[in-house]
Amino acid sequence: MQAVNVGLLGLGTVGAGVVDLLTRNGDEIVRRAGRDIRVTRAAVRDASKARECNTSNIDIGTDCYAIVTDPDIDVVLELIGGEAQAYDLVMAAIANGKHVVTANKHLIALHGNEIFAAADDAGVVVSFEAAVAGGIPVIKAIREGLAGNHIEWVAGIVNGTGNFILSQMMFEGVSFDEALADAQRRGFAEADPTFDVEGIDAAHKLAIIGSIAFGIPLSFDKIYTAGIREIAADDIEYAAEMGYRIKHLGIAKRLPTGVELRVHPTLVSEKALLASVEGEKNAVMVYGDAVGPTVYYGAGAGAGPTASSVVADLIDTVRMLSVDPSGRVPHLAFQPDQITHEPVLGATDFECGHYIRVQVADQTGVMAEITRLLAEMEIGIEAILQKDPSTAEDDARVIIVTKPVREGRLVEALDHIRALSYTREGVVHMRVAQFED
Amino acid sequence: MQAVNVGLLGLGTVGAGVVDLLTRNGDEIVRRAGRDIRVTRAAVRDASKARECNTSNIDIGTDCYAIVTDPDIDVVLELIGGEAQAYDLVMAAIANGKHVVTANKHLIALHGNEIFAAADDAGVVVSFEAAVAGGIPVIKAIREGLAGNHIEWVAGIVNGTGNFILSQMMFEGVSFDEALADAQRRGFAEADPTFDVEGIDAAHKLAIIGSIAFGIPLSFDKIYTAGIREIAADDIEYAAEMGYRIKHLGIAKRLPTGVELRVHPTLVSEKALLASVEGEKNAVMVYGDAVGPTVYYGAGAGAGPTASSVVADLIDTVRMLSVDPSGRVPHLAFQPDQITHEPVLGATDFECGHYIRVQVADQTGVMAEITRLLAEMEIGIEAILQKDPSTAEDDARVIIVTKPVREGRLVEALDHIRALSYTREGVVHMRVAQFED
Repeated sequence: MQAVNVGLLGLGTVGAGVVDLLTRNGDEIVRRAGRDIRVTRAAVRDASKARECNTSNIDIGTDCYAIVTDPDIDVVLELIGGEAQAYDLVMAAIANGKHVVTANKHLIALHGNEIFAAADDAGVVVSFEAAVAGGIPVIKAIREGLAGNHIEWVAGIVNGTGNFILSQMMFEGVSFDEALADAQRRGFAEADPTFDVEGIDAAHKLAIIGSIAFGIPLSFDKIYTAGIREIAADDIEYAAEMGYRIKHLGIAKRLPTGVELRVHPTLVSEKALLASVEGEKNAVMVYGDAVGPTVYYGAGAGAGPTASSVVADLIDTVRMLSVDPSGRVPHLAFQPDQITHEPVLGATDFECGHYIRVQVADQTGVMAEITRLLAEMEIGIEAILQKDPSTAEDDARVIIVTKPVREGRLVEALDHIRALSYTREGVVHMRVAQFED
Repeated sequence: MQAVNVGLLGLGTVGAGVVDLLTRNGDEIVRRAGRDIRVTRAAVRDASKARECNTSNIDIGTDCYAIVTDPDIDVVLELIGGEAQAYDLVMAAIANGKHVVTANKHLIALHGNEIFAAADDAGVVVSFEAAVAGGIPVIKAIREGLAGNHIEWVAGIVNGTGNFILSQMMFEGVSFDEALADAQRRGFAEADPTFDVEGIDAAHKLAIIGSIAFGIPLSFDKIYTAGIREIAADDIEYAAEMGYRIKHLGIAKRLPTGVELRVHPTLVSEKALLASVEGEKNAVMVYGDAVGPTVYYGAGAGAGPTASSVVADLIDTVRMLSVDPSGRVPHLAFQPDQITHEPVLGATDFECGHYIRVQVADQTGVMAEITRLLAEMEIGIEAILQKDPSTAEDDARVIIVTKPVREGRLVEALDHIRALSYTREGVVHMRVAQFED
């Protein structure tokens, strides 16, 4: 089937991330979407500037309007950010019958009501998954995945910069200013951090969340917003003493009298899931009357995560363009003729750490013997415990966590351990896995 | 627009939950979906049995085939469970041109390949969000929300019964058998718990996850599966001593040589997000090359959560039945003419707990005075700290966390506190919120 042509407005970090992702995963994306998705044109401020992606197949110019009016462009991808110019361009794209994908929360929070009305009139779709919580598909979860629920409240850490600052204050014991400077050094915070630390960026996102959760218009200007500048390191310490963590939350809540929409520093129990979201990560908790509490966690910003949501929106748009069943979401995510038969590996091929508990006669040198045996087989030891017998009749126990090793070799080692003269029945073995949050 | 007619196969706990949810949230569902969704017929084993939902508008009989062949039925909802009969009925529904929604992981894991091929041939859609992780929209996240990613691995706690047992063993110090009996008493575990504790149920779900993540056929019979019966309370204790928690995970991982699909007890760092998923809750972690790690958390079973996913699938099906733009997912989740203008409340109306830090001259009786003042205004105290001055020149500090109170009253209390003769400049005030996980 014919490729879908995307016109890109803006080719900065996120734009380059999108071009990169469409190139790198192009084969897999067409296996899922059923059609190729190609960025054919881009408009930038300075066409001579070097770009962070391969632009050899992209016609790069400086005229945004040439793109939104180009009859060969199916979808306009707005990534210039800001408000005024983005608004004009998106409205022009809609007027020209283009579908639009944007990552611009500022634009949607302030002008979404007009933009969506225009899009509905024109019969086009404006997608904005990347506008809230970066790579986490939380708009999809609320709009579609929880569509049967009466959503009671949503509470989210939706600004990674602010969360990074609060995590640093907590764990490094630094002041707000020091943590902010650190965030700026690492590229998490803008030179002007106002939008992040004053809660304006979070309020943009909360306006969108509140609207799709409750069926109200986007109401950015009615959101109560307080920033995190006033939080002292002492407050973080006192809160911790009382069992709380301070997080900068956006909260949308439905009450019989109306709707609460608020962004402010919030003490949450240190046992709450939201309390354990650290650094620049985002998490959104959604409470539906049928499903109860659900949480969506991941990267809230950055080129890769933002591109992830932008490309998902592009794929959704491609699927929507199709009226026949093959254009729907495929049952197994990939088009039926694109299912591959990769071999499923057997247990001996697994590579991971292992937990081993060995019951042994309480005998000097047992631990040394077992560790020597593992060392000979080049199986590294991550942690080791010896438990002495509690009564004279009991056996002792040696408990070992190994470093990652191919399971075939580990099984061989276990056979050797079982064969040792002082090993008792019942060697227990479990696997260990590491999952980078 | 005309209502969508749903025929229900099976009206047990989940079926009653679906009927309840469609009734209770009917107004909101039609505001989202644009069309009414009605269960008009149901087939059950015993038509005379009392049901846990209002069945006054449902034609209840015992003939499942009468439903899958009924020309007035648009969507068949399969909730009888099991494998053989469900397979025959779903295939018959497809042959009759019906769309199907099912919560049956057993059916999909074993027969999904044939079912989806038949559905694609017939031009109908079989939806199964409820088959994995109950109310968490994780199939949607993987199939659509992360569709731009090369998914590297997925690791999930996808069996609530097993996770409940492991949590009980950890926190109550009970044995596997005691924890299982407790789960059975609370209704989390079946009388025959084999599928749950041997990892078969988790493997059903992992087959689905692996397929939609990697584009391979459903491969249930190739999954390495180990249960949790052999885990001793001692192992949980030893693992904890070394900084690990034991979780029963399903892991799908893509390697250059093939695909790993495995269900087994797994030691994970106590600091990992998956380690903090307790009780009957589920969580699925998905690692995509662009987005990095993401986590989806919520209820994995139960009538409400399962109905949440089933109804979301019904709404998706309704939207797909429409070919015009108004049938798509509405921009703001609700149909454009269904946006309501509920009042957005102001800060004085918020009701929550408050953190107050007051700088005071170090003077006997200050604490008593402040607590008396709060008591007079009927503001309860959750926690209180007094920090003595570190040098003679310093002020003392009183830090209070209040119980929930309307913010207007709290602000009034703060004014009184500021007016006290020994209060210094800079009373700090933040809000406290509770979020039930």
